Amino acid sequence: MTQQKPQMKLGAFFSTPGNHLSGWRHPSAVTTTDMDFRQYMALTQLAEAAKFDTIFFQDTVAVGGSNAMAHGDRSKAQLSRIVKLEPTALLAALATGTTHIGLIATATTTFNEPYNIARRFSTIDHISGGRCGWNLVTSQIEDEAGNFGLEEHVNHAARYERAAEFYDVVTGLWDSWEEDAFLHDKDSGIWFDFDKMHFLNHKGKHFQVRGPLNVSRTPQGRPVVAQAGSSEPGMELAGKTADVVFTAQTELAAAQAFYAEVKSRTWRHGRTPDDIKIMPGLTPVIGRTMSEAQEKYDELQSLLPDEIALASLSRFTAGLDIRKFPLDGPLPELPETNSAKSRQKMVVDLARRENMTLRQIARHTAAAQGHRVVVGTPKMIADEMEEWVVKGGADGFCVICNYYPKPFTDFCDLVIPELQRRGVFRTEYEGTTLRENLGLKVPPNRYAQR
Amino acid sequence: MTQQKPQMKLGAFFSTPGNHLSGWRHPSAVTTTDMDFRQYMALTQLAEAAKFDTIFFQDTVAVGGSNAMAHGDRSKAQLSRIVKLEPTALLAALATGTTHIGLIATATTTFNEPYNIARRFSTIDHISGGRCGWNLVTSQIEDEAGNFGLEEHVNHAARYERAAEFYDVVTGLWDSWEEDAFLHDKDSGIWFDFDKMHFLNHKGKHFQVRGPLNVSRTPQGRPVVAQAGSSEPGMELAGKTADVVFTAQTELAAAQAFYAEVKSRTWRHGRTPDDIKIMPGLTPVIGRTMSEAQEKYDELQSLLPDEIALASLSRFTAGLDIRKFPLDGPLPELPETNSAKSRQKMVVDLARRENMTLRQIARHTAAAQGHRVVVGTPKMIADEMEEWVVKGGADGFCVICNYYPKPFTDFCDLVIPELQRRGVFRTEYEGTTLRENLGLKVPPNRYAQR
Repeated sequence: MTQQKPQMKLGAFFSTPGNHLSGWRHPSAVTTTDMDFRQYMALTQLAEAAKFDTIFFQDTVAVGGSNAMAHGDRSKAQLSRIVKLEPTALLAALATGTTHIGLIATATTTFNEPYNIARRFSTIDHISGGRCGWNLVTSQIEDEAGNFGLEEHVNHAARYERAAEFYDVVTGLWDSWEEDAFLHDKDSGIWFDFDKMHFLNHKGKHFQVRGPLNVSRTPQGRPVVAQAGSSEPGMELAGKTADVVFTAQTELAAAQAFYAEVKSRTWRHGRTPDDIKIMPGLTPVIGRTMSEAQEKYDELQSLLPDEIALASLSRFTAGLDIRKFPLDGPLPELPETNSAKSRQKMVVDLARRENMTLRQIARHTAAAQGHRVVVGTPKMIADEMEEWVVKGGADGFCVICNYYPKPFTDFCDLVIPELQRRGVFRTEYEGTTLRENLGLKVPPNRYAQR
Repeated sequence: MTQQKPQMKLGAFFSTPGNHLSGWRHPSAVTTTDMDFRQYMALTQLAEAAKFDTIFFQDTVAVGGSNAMAHGDRSKAQLSRIVKLEPTALLAALATGTTHIGLIATATTTFNEPYNIARRFSTIDHISGGRCGWNLVTSQIEDEAGNFGLEEHVNHAARYERAAEFYDVVTGLWDSWEEDAFLHDKDSGIWFDFDKMHFLNHKGKHFQVRGPLNVSRTPQGRPVVAQAGSSEPGMELAGKTADVVFTAQTELAAAQAFYAEVKSRTWRHGRTPDDIKIMPGLTPVIGRTMSEAQEKYDELQSLLPDEIALASLSRFTAGLDIRKFPLDGPLPELPETNSAKSRQKMVVDLARRENMTLRQIARHTAAAQGHRVVVGTPKMIADEMEEWVVKGGADGFCVICNYYPKPFTDFCDLVIPELQRRGVFRTEYEGTTLRENLGLKVPPNRYAQR
C-alpha cells in the first residue's frame, strides 16, 4: 500500500538566476529573472502544477559583495545575484496567480521591527488564503550592516538573542485577535468583540511592543515559520519555534545527526518531532544516462572561472584573503567567522575529509553554494531522495537549480513523476493551506477559551 | 476644443469599510472589505475601467484607538477601521490584476528604515511595470509609538527632520543603478557594468546608509512620491520633494491659498509648479436630484451615535477629554497637538466660522474625517470639481467614499462620464506608467552622463 510509505515534502527554492555561480552563462539560461515578475509567476505555476508544497525565496538586505566593491574590487561584477525583487512584495503578487502552493520568504530579524514583519506576513497569509510562511533568519551577510547605520556586523550571539525575542513578539502579535473577534453588527453598531482583542504588552531587552496587531487572525491561524540556522543557537531556536527547517546537508550521516538533534530539541519546548519538517537543499543535475548527467555538470563547471570560485569561497573565510594562497595547495586555516558559522564548518570539514586543494574546494563551493548536488538519472535522484527520507535524514527537500528554467522544468517533468509512481510524493494537494499540505497543526490562539 | 480645458487627475482613496464612521452600517455596505483581498481587486479593476490615475491607501502601524482601549475604553469597539491588509503587500498583489492604474500606498518614515522602504516600493514598481507610488508620511497617530518601543510619540519637528533625511536616502538609493547597468553577458561572464553602480555613502543625523540598493532602476525611473502633510514643515517638504500632494480642503479660498503656497515653494528647490499635482479629498454623496442626495446624507448621519462622533473628534483634541463638555455648547479651546496639526486647525476654524456646537462639529468631522463632502447630482458634483480645477484650487481629487462599493460604483457610473463629456477627464490612459498618466517627468539618474 502506498499509504505506508513516508511522504516527502518538497520546496522549490528559486535561487535565480541560478545556484551555480556561473549557471547563468549556460546557453539555455534565462538571465533576466531577477527583476522580471512574470518569470517568477511562470516558475511558481510550474511548481504548483508539480504539487510542490511551497516555493521559497532567500533574501539579503544588501548587494552581496558591496563591502568589497566599495573598496574597488571589480571582480564582483561577475557575480549574478546582485539585484532582486523584494521577496515579501513578490510573494503577495505570486499569491494571486496560484491557489494551493505555499509561499515562503526570508526576512531578517536583525534589521526589521517585529510589528512590521508580523503585519506583512499575516497580510500575505490573508491574500493567499493561508499559504504564507516566514523564513526567520539573522543576517549572515556582513554587507548588510552598512545599509542600516552600523559600522560593523552584529555579532552572532547578539543576533540570535534578538531573533528569539523577535519571534516571541511576532507570534504574540499574531494572537492579537481571536478567530471570531469581528462581528460587523450593523444593528448594534458593534464592529468587534472587545474581549476577543488582546494586548501583547511585551517588554523585553530588545523590544517593547504593546499591540494589538492591526491584522486579524489569518486563514491558517498564523503563517508558517521556517528557519535556516544550523549553528548551536540556530538549532535551539529551531527546536523551540520552527515549523520548517531549511538546511544544507551534503552527507547522509551528518544529515541524520542534524535531523535527530533538531527534532530531539522539540520535547523540551512542549513540542513533538512531527511539529518540524526538515528540508535539506538538493541540487539535481539530471541526464537520461549517468554520463549525460555528468557531462551537464562538467559543462557548468567549464563556465566557472577560478576567480569567481575564490570570490564565492571568501564568504566563509572571515576576512582572510584567500587569493594569496596557492590554488593547488590545501585550504588554509580559517579564522572564526561571525556570519555563517555552520556553513563555514561544512566547507572546512569537506576540504579536509576529501583532501581537496584550494581550487577544488572553491570550485565545489561555487557550484553548489554549500548544498548537496546529485548528478544522475531521474531514477538515481529519486533513489537518493527516498533513501534520505526513509533513513531519517530529511522530511523532504528544497530543490535548488543551477540555472532557470530548464533544470527546474526537467525536475518537474522527470523526477516528480518518478517520486509519484513510487508513492512517496503526492499527486493531489491534501488541502488549501500550507499547514494542511505540510501536515502541521494550527497553533491555538493563546488567549482563546477552549 | 476639448484639449484646451484643464485635465483633472483622479485618485481613488479606498478608505474601507467607509470614510463616514458609520458608513459600514448602511444596509448596502459590505463590511468584510478590510481583510478580503478579492474585494480590493474588484474595486481597483472598477477604478481602472473608469480611468482613474491611481488608487491610494492610507496606513497606520497600530490599531487606531489602542492607547485608549489599553485603558479599558470600550466605546472604541464601535470603530470600524481596526484591522486592514498591510498596504504594500496589497499593492503588489493588485498590480497583477491591472495594467494601467497607479498604485500608491502610505508608509511612515517614523517607524521604518529607508533601505527597506526604497526596496519595497521599487520592487512594486518593477512588478507593476512602473505604476507604483509611495505616500511619504510622518506618523500622526499616537497609538503607533507603543508598537515600536517608545513611551511617547515622537514630536512633530523631529518627525519632519527625520522624514526629510529619509526622503534623501530613499531617492538616493533609487539612483544606485543606471538604466543600462546590467549586461548579463554570457561570453565575458560580466553581469553588470561596475561604473554604472553607485554607492550612496549617506552619513546624516538619523541615518548612515552605504548602498547600493539591491533593486535595479525601475520602469518609470523611480516610484512617484506623494505626501499628505499640510503643516508648515509639511508644505516645505512637499515643495522640495512631492510629485503628488494629498490634502484635506473644504473651502475653495483656502484650497487656492494652499495650492498657491505649495506650488510657489517648488521654485526655491529647482522645480516648477507643474512638478506637483495637488489632489484634495472629495467625498461625493450622489442623488438623481438634490433632495435624493440630501436624503442619502441624512440617512448616513442617522446611523451615527453621538459618542462615536465624539470619539472621532478626540483624535484632534490633544488628549483633552471632549466628553466632559456640553454637547450643545461650543467646541472648547483645544491644547496644541503633536500629531495632526493642520487637520486640528481646520476643525477648529470650521467650528468657529460656522458657529457650530460641539455635537455639530463632532458629527460633521465623523462624517467626513476632515474631507470635503459634496452632496448633489452628478452634474452639481462635476460642476464643483471643474470649478476648483479651473480656479486653481486643485489639479484633481482623491475620491473617498462613505462606504463600499455602491457610492464608488455610482461615482464611476455617473460622475466620471459627466466629466468625460465635458472634456476635463481622460477617456483613455495616456501611457502605461503612473508618471506618464500624471504628466510627471522621469527624474534623471543623478550619476548618469547626459
